Amino acid sequence: MENQKKIACIGIDLGGTNLRAALVSRSGKILEMRVAKSAGQGAESLAKDLANQCLDLMRRGEAQGLKTVAAGLGVAGKIDPSGGLVVFSPNLPLLNGYPLGRDLEKNLGIPVYMENDANVFGLGESLAGAARGLGNWVGIVLGTGTGGCLFFNGKLWEGDRLGFSGEIGHMMVEPGGPICPCGSNGCLEAFASARALVSGAKRALLSPGVNAGPLGSFSGSLSAEAIYECAKRGDPAALALFDKMGWALGIALSNLFSALGIRSAVIGGGVSGAWDQFIGPLEKTLARNCSMLKPEAAIVRRSFLGDSAALIGAARLGFKAR
Amino acid sequence: MENQKKIACIGIDLGGTNLRAALVSRSGKILEMRVAKSAGQGAESLAKDLANQCLDLMRRGEAQGLKTVAAGLGVAGKIDPSGGLVVFSPNLPLLNGYPLGRDLEKNLGIPVYMENDANVFGLGESLAGAARGLGNWVGIVLGTGTGGCLFFNGKLWEGDRLGFSGEIGHMMVEPGGPICPCGSNGCLEAFASARALVSGAKRALLSPGVNAGPLGSFSGSLSAEAIYECAKRGDPAALALFDKMGWALGIALSNLFSALGIRSAVIGGGVSGAWDQFIGPLEKTLARNCSMLKPEAAIVRRSFLGDSAALIGAARLGFKAR
Repeated sequence: MENQKKIACIGIDLGGTNLRAALVSRSGKILEMRVAKSAGQGAESLAKDLANQCLDLMRRGEAQGLKTVAAGLGVAGKIDPSGGLVVFSPNLPLLNGYPLGRDLEKNLGIPVYMENDANVFGLGESLAGAARGLGNWVGIVLGTGTGGCLFFNGKLWEGDRLGFSGEIGHMMVEPGGPICPCGSNGCLEAFASARALVSGAKRALLSPGVNAGPLGSFSGSLSAEAIYECAKRGDPAALALFDKMGWALGIALSNLFSALGIRSAVIGGGVSGAWDQFIGPLEKTLARNCSMLKPEAAIVRRSFLGDSAALIGAARLGFKAR
Repeated sequence: MENQKKIACIGIDLGGTNLRAALVSRSGKILEMRVAKSAGQGAESLAKDLANQCLDLMRRGEAQGLKTVAAGLGVAGKIDPSGGLVVFSPNLPLLNGYPLGRDLEKNLGIPVYMENDANVFGLGESLAGAARGLGNWVGIVLGTGTGGCLFFNGKLWEGDRLGFSGEIGHMMVEPGGPICPCGSNGCLEAFASARALVSGAKRALLSPGVNAGPLGSFSGSLSAEAIYECAKRGDPAALALFDKMGWALGIALSNLFSALGIRSAVIGGGVSGAWDQFIGPLEKTLARNCSMLKPEAAIVRRSFLGDSAALIGAARLGFKAR
């Protein structure tokens, strides 16, 4: 019998800018990590790069007496896990229709499992992060867009397996609100994402008076980070954007808590770095709108794992499948 | 061993006006039914009435060779199933804090199970109604207020067992919308319930011009049924109320379908009788807002069982517990 203590899995987080891969233990410890650029190359070249990174990680594991038994891959967008296929990737369109999982499987000689990036975040946080010990909870990933996942009884919820689940970013929170890339409007994503912050700041800069604040005199390219810095310096337009983000998150969570009869959420992703700017309005909105729940009973946690959540969660796909 | 074919359970639907009890077979067939007034008496007198109805049903069953093994009780509001207690009943406040279930258990000599009325509706529809064969679905009960339930993998979802679950009526669909009895505003219930229709009609009647239509010249007491009749006669204010109801239901379902990755709903309750007036706007809103789902993939069904859903579902509580 294989010694369970001596096996590892590879977790891969394939983002629009970077490709990160790590060798991960069963308990969710990152043992080795590699980072490379994902942008600016074709699908086949990217797949080859990825395979080389993984083979290198497998060799490093072997040197430590670890056998790598599987790999897991988290990708933004719509994927077809059974076919090992990226169906549609908003951040890496070159991968659309490319059988990345199958390709990797052939090159590594181990099984490769694929999952949506927000689901992989949730798998990581529940194994080794802020969701440890939570049975039923909502996960929200504040990135370029707004990802989400649901865990019921400690397990990732997959709904009717329609190719989507946990699309919390596309819950409508304000009828007639800003347009969302999904085609609808007033979705959570139109308020609570890096893209929403940048669009909102651009809209605000067209209003008279805004140019006087830190946001108006900001000289670099407008990013979520820059808007956060402006908010910390007291810029009213930037503060209003984070206020609205917290409000929108509060409405979405209130609606989910009421409907599901649950009370826990974990929020991660790059924009969760602005926690101090949106958690106040979020909690206020939740307390005001979720009439079913005593405000003090709600559990809204910030991701513990940061960037590592996706790597640990992706590796967990490999362990889970065994 | 007890012959499974020769047992029955009692299902009780305790509403604000009527108390209905039925002898129900395992397959969900109503064998005998009793109706009495629930209003206008004290808790003890109501409990005694109810016990007598049930004892009568048990005797009738016995005469047909049926052994009644348990009873189930559906009540609007917050209940404590383990204590057999009505914690808070909005429609029958005289029952608040009354141990109705325990009382009944003592009088009948069989176990009595209690559940929220919307959950009992769902149990009925999934056994013998419009939800037969659906694994994951949303139930909505359009009554005085707006009840809801969720079924995952064919089972009633109970969330974190916080004393509420499936409170779809308290999902906010329009920030700044009409006040809801829950204390929040813009909830689904503030648009999609008999109470919302009546309040909406009263508000509309204060506007100039509305008095000219059928609604303005309606002489009886304003009820959901009366408003429905006015809508069928083309009254613009009444039509607008059902349009808004359909819109609000479409937003709530769209949000739940996106978040849960599911596509099925069953709508019942008295106000679902106005189906022809709100299903169009509901489907239009769902198609426009639920960007994840192809419009033709959505399954939105009207309750098959009507008033019987609650009786059959309540009886099912008894069978389930065995």
